[in-house]
Amino acid sequence: MSQRKQLKLGVIIHGVGGLISGWRHPDVPADASISLEFYKNHAQLAEAGKFDLAFIADGLHINEKSIPHFLNRFEPLTILSALAAVTSRIGLVGTLSTSYSEPFTVARQFASLDAISDGRAGWNVVTSPLEASARNFNKGSHPTHGDRYKIATEHLEVVRGLWDSWEDDAFVRDKENDRFFDSSKMHPLNHKGNYFSVEGPLNVARSRQGQPVIFQAGASESGKELAVASADAIFTSHTILEDAKAFYKEIKERAVEQGRSEDDIVIMPGIGPIIGDTEEEAEQLYQELASLVSIDRALEFLGRFFDHHDFSQYPLDEPFPDLGDLGKNTFRSDTDKIKQKAREHGLTLRQVALQTTTPRSSFTGTPEKVADLIQKWHEEKGSDGFIVHAATPVQLRRFVEKVVPILQERGIFRTEYEADTLRGNLGLPIPANRHTLQRV
Amino acid sequence: MSQRKQLKLGVIIHGVGGLISGWRHPDVPADASISLEFYKNHAQLAEAGKFDLAFIADGLHINEKSIPHFLNRFEPLTILSALAAVTSRIGLVGTLSTSYSEPFTVARQFASLDAISDGRAGWNVVTSPLEASARNFNKGSHPTHGDRYKIATEHLEVVRGLWDSWEDDAFVRDKENDRFFDSSKMHPLNHKGNYFSVEGPLNVARSRQGQPVIFQAGASESGKELAVASADAIFTSHTILEDAKAFYKEIKERAVEQGRSEDDIVIMPGIGPIIGDTEEEAEQLYQELASLVSIDRALEFLGRFFDHHDFSQYPLDEPFPDLGDLGKNTFRSDTDKIKQKAREHGLTLRQVALQTTTPRSSFTGTPEKVADLIQKWHEEKGSDGFIVHAATPVQLRRFVEKVVPILQERGIFRTEYEADTLRGNLGLPIPANRHTLQRV
Ligand SMILES: Cc1cc2nc3c(=O)[nH]c(=O)nc-3n(C[C@H](O)[C@H](O)[C@H](O)COP(=O)(O)O)c2cc1C
Ligand SMILES: Cc1cc2nc3c(=O)[nH]c(=O)nc-3n(C[C@H](O)[C@H](O)[C@H](O)COP(=O)(O)O)c2cc1C
Repeated sequence: MSQRKQLKLGVIIHGVGGLISGWRHPDVPADASISLEFYKNHAQLAEAGKFDLAFIADGLHINEKSIPHFLNRFEPLTILSALAAVTSRIGLVGTLSTSYSEPFTVARQFASLDAISDGRAGWNVVTSPLEASARNFNKGSHPTHGDRYKIATEHLEVVRGLWDSWEDDAFVRDKENDRFFDSSKMHPLNHKGNYFSVEGPLNVARSRQGQPVIFQAGASESGKELAVASADAIFTSHTILEDAKAFYKEIKERAVEQGRSEDDIVIMPGIGPIIGDTEEEAEQLYQELASLVSIDRALEFLGRFFDHHDFSQYPLDEPFPDLGDLGKNTFRSDTDKIKQKAREHGLTLRQVALQTTTPRSSFTGTPEKVADLIQKWHEEKGSDGFIVHAATPVQLRRFVEKVVPILQERGIFRTEYEADTLRGNLGLPIPANRHTLQRV
Repeated sequence: MSQRKQLKLGVIIHGVGGLISGWRHPDVPADASISLEFYKNHAQLAEAGKFDLAFIADGLHINEKSIPHFLNRFEPLTILSALAAVTSRIGLVGTLSTSYSEPFTVARQFASLDAISDGRAGWNVVTSPLEASARNFNKGSHPTHGDRYKIATEHLEVVRGLWDSWEDDAFVRDKENDRFFDSSKMHPLNHKGNYFSVEGPLNVARSRQGQPVIFQAGASESGKELAVASADAIFTSHTILEDAKAFYKEIKERAVEQGRSEDDIVIMPGIGPIIGDTEEEAEQLYQELASLVSIDRALEFLGRFFDHHDFSQYPLDEPFPDLGDLGKNTFRSDTDKIKQKAREHGLTLRQVALQTTTPRSSFTGTPEKVADLIQKWHEEKGSDGFIVHAATPVQLRRFVEKVVPILQERGIFRTEYEADTLRGNLGLPIPANRHTLQRV
């Protein structure tokens, strides 16, 4: 057993999934993205597996070429609130964009989710990679990458300020003396900044975890700055251990430089394990998934990362085309990675397209192999834990029933929840209310 | 038994309540406004009583003088989503302001609630009476009454347009032929108006009830115009049968003039019944509630309707002061009513303040008396039903256990849900998708 803190696990509940043709798999209910039953079963299964959290991703613009899951799915705060009522320990983390929302509403809705779940809410702060989002929100144009992060930084500052509107003992509720609250413990924010001007106070008090957990998923330099300064957790997309270790080291060092502790920021890459009883069975499952995607669909999907660029104009079996700056203002870190990989391995367009639609996870194999890799990443400080996205419901069940027990036997994953708040389980401190701090 | 359609019933779940000191009553859990247990118990009790809907009110600005319930409460969409997961037939209606929200987000969140609840969502469209709301939403000033209704009209048009983004048979989900949806049945909105510009399509499909039910609660001429043109239901605050009948007649006639049917718009006044086994017990309960309010609190509460006007500057036992235009841009219909009543009955400030904080409902008395009045209002076309706000949990239980059975015996209220959508139970037609209509 290692000296490391135990690892953390999340599940991304993702309807018919992040793959363009994954919905075609016989094990996937084709209406999963809009099925309460599906979301409830997954959340309860993950809770039975003692997962720290369930995660809901999001996006703000669709068109004909969007992947099936994006076309018709639950909005994160509403589905997480529904899940809060049918679970009791698992954390509930939702994605919401700072580029197209009002801090007062965001603060309220997450605080309300935190109250409903009694301290299990988390917010994945994103800035919206899709330029077209602007057209759904009365905006002439999508803010630039730099502006989006400036807006995000101030937005988050406002939301956190609003969350501290009420000190923890502000609500006295003394019926005898007609004293519902102590007005000296209610604090308007009076924020006036470059992008937002918000008076407050918020009309929701803090929960038992103080404030919802802040996740961050931006991988650019600006994304990392925001994470290092303000996030409690990072959801990353590393697939190579060496890259993950470098990122991990950098983030933890930068956090410490800013006066934070290493443990104050939890790093969780997403993994899409494919688990079989034998290596062959796992490989067969991977091939099954890959075979569901036609080349046309694959090109279309690739285009999504590059602002719906039309890749069908290029020859399939020649080197991946030179795209110049295309993709820089959208999913920048993904597009940089795709371009780099194509260049380094001399891949053709066809190869890039197929590998992008159905990436082969290194976490493919028997439960033991998957558990070994998880342990290795964790021990070697590639991550503090993982967010699991299962290609099919059967895969999540296998993870919970076969991989989790191995991790528990090895003493690197909990057998019981340590706490009943998300912060508690993630090992994060409960932030003191800023106004209470000022008093002491 | 009358020829009328059966009556409709809603419950407003309201935490520690709409009264300034109601939270002090021994039967009221003092943390009710932020207690999932409380909301869940009420929704399930109302569902056992075959109520059509649970209603959540809302507000966007608080200060020290706000009533206790407003200071720390759930946000409507999140709590309704939680209730959706623990109920199966009751409708779930939430208030949301068109003055401080993005149509795309509003459309999504209500559509998501509608999906989670499988066709039980409703939206109470309000324009926000409190001027101070602007200061929580980066706005220099609160739009005028007239502008608020222009914004509301266009906002609602956009939301309804987005709700029709997908025709009902758009999602084919044919795994064999790799066809998830029929793109000819997906419809971007491309709205460009005076206040909003929204491309669409929405990323949530319609539910079994087609679109969430639209409630309206504005009582001014502009409010009525919006209701007559676009609402499925009106939540009113009439307390006098003659007024209610005049309003009812006017609304139904105006709806018919616009080519709608009388049954297309359901009128539901709010009532706060006080039920005792005897008249004396009911009267005692009313006195108990009234005695919880001090005169200072009463003046403070009165001020809330008039943009937090300070009434402590006037003598208590002289005629109600002349306030000029004060209150015209906030809760206009309420303030007009308060002024008028004071003038007509020659009330003092003290009398107005006490009657405003704890109005004596005419629905006070034995279960039979309350049932009689309900039947009278219904038969004489003062309303199509009622939204019940109970002063204490015990009162809601009495309503469900003692009043409802009488109404059922008389054949004017259902003994079983007729439908499993909110529209179905309210007797409202399911609106055909506008694009499907165009096709036929
Ligand atoms: C693991 C992971 C999950 C993400 N989830 C979302 C999401 O749910 N919604 C979204 O709009 N963007 C999501 N993103 C995109 C990021 O918000 C971000 O835009 C992208 O990583 C590009 O990084 P950058 O914005 O810092 O350049 C995710 C990114 C990663 C790495
Ligand atoms: C029964 C009833 C319930 C209401 N509920 C709310 C509410 O939850 N939130 C809100 O901001 N306003 C609410 N209002 C206020 C109305 O939205 C509206 O502002 C007020 O009735 C004044 O009417 P007008 O805006 O048409 O002048 C309610 C009004 C009535 C009559």
